[in-house]
Amino acid sequence: MQFGRYLEEFQVGDVYKHWPGKTITQAEDILFCSITMNQHPLHSDDNYAAAATPHGNAMVVGNLVYSIVLGQSVPDVSGRAIANLEIESLKHANPTFHGDTIYSETEVLEVRESRSKPDRGIVKVKTIGYKQDGTIVCEFTRKVLIPKKDAAGEEFPGRPLPQTD
Amino acid sequence: MQFGRYLEEFQVGDVYKHWPGKTITQAEDILFCSITMNQHPLHSDDNYAAAATPHGNAMVVGNLVYSIVLGQSVPDVSGRAIANLEIESLKHANPTFHGDTIYSETEVLEVRESRSKPDRGIVKVKTIGYKQDGTIVCEFTRKVLIPKKDAAGEEFPGRPLPQTD
Repeated sequence: MQFGRYLEEFQVGDVYKHWPGKTITQAEDILFCSITMNQHPLHSDDNYAAAATPHGNAMVVGNLVYSIVLGQSVPDVSGRAIANLEIESLKHANPTFHGDTIYSETEVLEVRESRSKPDRGIVKVKTIGYKQDGTIVCEFTRKVLIPKKDAAGEEFPGRPLPQTD
Repeated sequence: MQFGRYLEEFQVGDVYKHWPGKTITQAEDILFCSITMNQHPLHSDDNYAAAATPHGNAMVVGNLVYSIVLGQSVPDVSGRAIANLEIESLKHANPTFHGDTIYSETEVLEVRESRSKPDRGIVKVKTIGYKQDGTIVCEFTRKVLIPKKDAAGEEFPGRPLPQTD
């Protein structure tokens, strides 16, 4: 299986359709809000959502949607990344509700070698997340620091061998 | 207690020191990665972290740090927000490890009335998150859509009254 790419494997214009998708349950949304200290009632108070929103339903917190979309992109984009340098222009384009399923894809925008270190480079990508009906819910660009193939060291650092005897 | 602000309550240059802080446990980090499909071994494989990183320890996934910092800012910044419009320039400035404690503060950069709807406006803020020793770990700017006081409707939408008789 592939987990991440080396710098040489990124080509401007390539699009990766990430797999698999993920259905967001209400339990996960409330758990996410709890461990991230987000107490906005839009996500965890059904009475508030019924009284105060045009949809009438609790909405999934944007950072869970964004984090799932980014998580889905890791095996294609940043599985070998040295660092996540910056996220630019993160937009929550449309609301997501409990039970919605998130899919995502990423386009490679720029690939360039590092100016200071010859063993690595910077890749800029645009990732979008969308729901089961195709509605885009999230989009962002990000820059990641990626090693070159020759400089990358072992393929699976720290991975032990099974003891078979 | 205060939970969010109306548009009239935001003043350019004001700084909100959010409270309380939060210690990030290893269990929360692994749980966060699991529900957001982030399988990068940097966060959940101690052997990988020992073999492949200069720190030798598993690092907290950036989106958990970012989400906690944003969550901490909700009571001061976006508790009354109509929408979270855009996050600009999200940077993970320094690594965070299990056991680190996150604090945060927000500066108001811009306040302006909506051009299309007279009952609301857009507030732009810069939020930083930092650790127990003051090291900045995360910074971002975001724009939120905020109602004016007169147009905001009830203070606690959907909140029932206790039955006391």
